[in-house]
Amino acid sequence: MQKVDVCFSPALLPLYSIQDSVVVVIDIFRATSSICYGIDNGASEIIPVSTVEECQSYVGKDYLLAAERNGEVVTGFDFGNSPFAYSISKVKNKKIVLTTTNGTNAINLSKQAHQIIIGSFLNLTAVCNYLIAKDRNVLLLCAGWKNKFNLEDSLFAGAVVNQLKYAEPTLCDASIAAEDIYLKAKPDLRKYLRKSSHSHRLQELNIENDILFCLQQDIVQTIPVLQNGKIVKMDTSLE
Amino acid sequence: MQKVDVCFSPALLPLYSIQDSVVVVIDIFRATSSICYGIDNGASEIIPVSTVEECQSYVGKDYLLAAERNGEVVTGFDFGNSPFAYSISKVKNKKIVLTTTNGTNAINLSKQAHQIIIGSFLNLTAVCNYLIAKDRNVLLLCAGWKNKFNLEDSLFAGAVVNQLKYAEPTLCDASIAAEDIYLKAKPDLRKYLRKSSHSHRLQELNIENDILFCLQQDIVQTIPVLQNGKIVKMDTSLE
Repeated sequence: MQKVDVCFSPALLPLYSIQDSVVVVIDIFRATSSICYGIDNGASEIIPVSTVEECQSYVGKDYLLAAERNGEVVTGFDFGNSPFAYSISKVKNKKIVLTTTNGTNAINLSKQAHQIIIGSFLNLTAVCNYLIAKDRNVLLLCAGWKNKFNLEDSLFAGAVVNQLKYAEPTLCDASIAAEDIYLKAKPDLRKYLRKSSHSHRLQELNIENDILFCLQQDIVQTIPVLQNGKIVKMDTSLE
Repeated sequence: MQKVDVCFSPALLPLYSIQDSVVVVIDIFRATSSICYGIDNGASEIIPVSTVEECQSYVGKDYLLAAERNGEVVTGFDFGNSPFAYSISKVKNKKIVLTTTNGTNAINLSKQAHQIIIGSFLNLTAVCNYLIAKDRNVLLLCAGWKNKFNLEDSLFAGAVVNQLKYAEPTLCDASIAAEDIYLKAKPDLRKYLRKSSHSHRLQELNIENDILFCLQQDIVQTIPVLQNGKIVKMDTSLE
């Protein structure tokens, strides 16, 4: 790959030319972690939609409906974005339509990309190995929190940069910063994130177990990829 | 102060409520460094304008005209944003109108703020002492490079956070990240910035002396402040 860029907010995405890039969408707490876990657990497809209304339009169409806003399940929906809702017993061979505060919007804003894949600590090394083998420009898109910078997405971006840099790509300033933050946090990600404002907010939602789950590294090898508007398991034999 | 936010790009400024905040505009290489130096050297006022055309409209009006685009002096203008152009012999008692690629635009986007001041490593501690005494919310606005994140502005933001945190403000995630990057870079800012893409670009412009000048800390006590659309020396006895 020639370069690895990090974009700290979906609001900055228009500054990047992504037509020839693989975009990795990152929303660690919790959308992209749950997508990785759900696809690995056999969900046949996850359709990311930007609004609760779009999600509602799938009522009666054989989809599980997942909607989260401000960290909580939207009233009337099957579930939100807690990874524990994406277990084998709940999602195997199921189709899901999902909308979240930050992550699904970031996916939908990236549609001009050469390819969109879904990253989280759960599939960190699988994603990095894929990107190195693919040998294309990479944009790591942090979903952030309502378009603001957040620490956990940036930490993950830094973890990816840390693995990709051995391929000697050009790094943008944001990539350099993300890697340095990651290296500082690496010995204990959970401890580092305790000083984050977003983490405080999440703590109030009583989702400590979700946070610990989402910070596990390399528990799956699956790479979710967007194909025809649906997130499915990448068939790496075809890549 | 209740909180210290860092905004990594002018494009993200609309996400912040700044009506009650002091905004510190940061464009280390080189607009805000040169403004600090020029005001300290006796420039009576510097008018920041967003476009070269606005700058040209001051021709014949007893102003020095300074215009920089993409790191270079615009043809036909007195000078650009090299700090060496803002020496006592050149600017004392002079009025200047200035447009730069990033910095002046950031100033003009902040006009809703309670107050806009100009920060650089040259006046770092003076700015921090003022902010602590002022005891208002603070937004540290990094001008960045064409709306993208850059390292040098973020390092300065982190240096400010590092001094302000003893007043125990709430820090946003970007403030935490900026401080950690600064702490990593602090032993040798110039060395750290050598890995920056922006620094490579600046190196091609042959402005190493400007870079070293702009990384000097606390060589002036002056705080430039925007008043009625003009940047002037703050009269701290009135604050």
